[in-house]
Amino acid sequence: MPTASFSSSRARLYSTAKVATANSARKDNKSRYWAFAAAGSALAFSLWTAPKIYCDAANDDKQRRAEGPITDKDPMRLRMEAFVKGLQNRIVSDIEALDGKQFTRTTWQRQEGGEGITCVLQDGNVFEKAGVGVSIVYGQLPKAAVEQMRHDRGKDISADGPVPFFAAGISLVMHPHNPNAPTVHMNYRYFEIENPDGTPKMWWFGGGSDLTPSYLYEEDAIHFHQVLKEGCDKFDKKHYGNFKQWCDKYFYNKHRGESRGIGGIFFDDLDDKPADEVFSFVKEMGNRFSLSYIPIMKKRMNMRFTPEMKEWQQIRRGRYVEFNLVWDRGTKFGLQTPGARIEAILMSLPLTARWEYMHVPEPGSKEEDLEEVLKNPRDWVPLD
Amino acid sequence: MPTASFSSSRARLYSTAKVATANSARKDNKSRYWAFAAAGSALAFSLWTAPKIYCDAANDDKQRRAEGPITDKDPMRLRMEAFVKGLQNRIVSDIEALDGKQFTRTTWQRQEGGEGITCVLQDGNVFEKAGVGVSIVYGQLPKAAVEQMRHDRGKDISADGPVPFFAAGISLVMHPHNPNAPTVHMNYRYFEIENPDGTPKMWWFGGGSDLTPSYLYEEDAIHFHQVLKEGCDKFDKKHYGNFKQWCDKYFYNKHRGESRGIGGIFFDDLDDKPADEVFSFVKEMGNRFSLSYIPIMKKRMNMRFTPEMKEWQQIRRGRYVEFNLVWDRGTKFGLQTPGARIEAILMSLPLTARWEYMHVPEPGSKEEDLEEVLKNPRDWVPLD
Repeated sequence: MPTASFSSSRARLYSTAKVATANSARKDNKSRYWAFAAAGSALAFSLWTAPKIYCDAANDDKQRRAEGPITDKDPMRLRMEAFVKGLQNRIVSDIEALDGKQFTRTTWQRQEGGEGITCVLQDGNVFEKAGVGVSIVYGQLPKAAVEQMRHDRGKDISADGPVPFFAAGISLVMHPHNPNAPTVHMNYRYFEIENPDGTPKMWWFGGGSDLTPSYLYEEDAIHFHQVLKEGCDKFDKKHYGNFKQWCDKYFYNKHRGESRGIGGIFFDDLDDKPADEVFSFVKEMGNRFSLSYIPIMKKRMNMRFTPEMKEWQQIRRGRYVEFNLVWDRGTKFGLQTPGARIEAILMSLPLTARWEYMHVPEPGSKEEDLEEVLKNPRDWVPLD
Repeated sequence: MPTASFSSSRARLYSTAKVATANSARKDNKSRYWAFAAAGSALAFSLWTAPKIYCDAANDDKQRRAEGPITDKDPMRLRMEAFVKGLQNRIVSDIEALDGKQFTRTTWQRQEGGEGITCVLQDGNVFEKAGVGVSIVYGQLPKAAVEQMRHDRGKDISADGPVPFFAAGISLVMHPHNPNAPTVHMNYRYFEIENPDGTPKMWWFGGGSDLTPSYLYEEDAIHFHQVLKEGCDKFDKKHYGNFKQWCDKYFYNKHRGESRGIGGIFFDDLDDKPADEVFSFVKEMGNRFSLSYIPIMKKRMNMRFTPEMKEWQQIRRGRYVEFNLVWDRGTKFGLQTPGARIEAILMSLPLTARWEYMHVPEPGSKEEDLEEVLKNPRDWVPLD
């Protein structure tokens, strides 16, 4: 099959692909399951990777990437990819400056289209474990995933034929050594389902960022929420209130009756304004990460602490593990998907955790203060 | 409502109960969800606890208990209860003799009928964490649970009316300090659905025992399996082979492509012989616990180890947490059931665990030997 047939007319390309599949001519491209799962986030889905020939967007984008810098005129796929890669670089270098130790970088390619960069810092000076991952995926939605999207999320997708899609996201989790310093999580992602001509038939953004302290410093919670609210308010005065509530609801350890942390923002299926505008919002929020977290770290990372405080932190880490393994949609889905990149999915887990039987904080203690706020989420900044 | 109406005719009692419910006369006995979950085992199910008046077996058994010692003529409910309580006592004292530290005992009562005893030893001399729990439950199966039992397990239960049931079980998990010494899990349980006259309409036993080493000592694996096989062989020559395979299949971390440990036995829905005979088998297996585990502990608990070995043990503990939180049916079900005793369900988790990004054992190392056997389960003793 000549390479030329991959390029110009997408309609022709599709019919060629169907013939090739029917003839079983491309046995090397066996369909198989694959998972794209961003650590600690809701961004993970199984997908059926059809023969490579369907993934025309991947080829077009590859060509476009080779030609030169990505601009606002390019498809959102390439713009989001460029954004998350740039953001990953900036965050990694900000955290390296704070920690003094370098991240280990792993890059991986998807044969069917797409790639990933996973940066992990383990046993650093400030961080016990910090991971920042970027994933770019071109693929075909399996029928089951289409059904689920239609049913659970009201997406108007027809499954009569291949459903080519694209996803790009950044995901990070950072667990510091010092129990006075909070764990942080952030994830932003773009998802697109394509028409046969490669234009987006449907698209949405999702993501958020939330803070999980072992000891509550109200000023830290206020700072974190304030930075997020200021970003939200630039775009829509309702965003912060809605997304703050969504976050409290999502990051909730139902079996414990307590939140994972002191919240932040969380949203999904965001497509209520033109894509350019929603993308600007997502960029604004992603770019606020260092501002939201690093000032808190600078205050807390060198504070003195006792072995008892370290033990409490370890118990809280156990609750983090419980949320991610029991409730997080993305992690659950990823773990149940054959062939998923398990190490990337579980990158979000802390280096160490602890489970004590019937541990109850002392009445009136700082540990009890934290539990109180996890059981009764607060508004850290006034809502408009 | 006079107390007398609770005693003699069960048929009358049921109709009285229905009237009481219809009249909403007993508002203090609101229906609510409750979970009975044995740590780290498949024994956990949600149940709708109807007004106390339905639980006649609970009252009858209470009277019988007050009268004097339980004999072979008594209902299986009382015989299994007596057995698991006695076994718990014996195991707890065997482990205390080994460790030198005492278990903490917590007893709890269920208002609707039933009770539990949870024994936990934490930060002992030999054990990092060891828990032995016993649960006795009288209740009503909720419609959803009946449907699930019919659909998933082929149980011929009608849900046209209340489904009174009883469950009794023992469950234990022990995590030693020394990385040369293996973690062990054991669980045996009896389940019964009652006719309106209190006789068992349907019953079955389930359970098993399995070993999870961080370092493989083949002689330990052989000893453990040999003790189990000898017990099985007394009752049915097919039991060991079938239940060994079931165990390998059940305690499997699918997302890692590896078993949790080196296996043992696991079975459920066992009702293929008269109840007396199946009960004898379960007693035989439960009674073999100390013989299967303590000789291994005596060999391993004082062996020297390096910090690297301790770290590997902690990584293996992380895999144990993954299995229990992601795959174990009982734990999953318990955690999703409002009002469950979370501390009892999570008693099976290790005191400490560790997750390292992309940890790969050195080629040719003892750590790799373990992974090899977890990826390719072996027959430790010849099958008949």
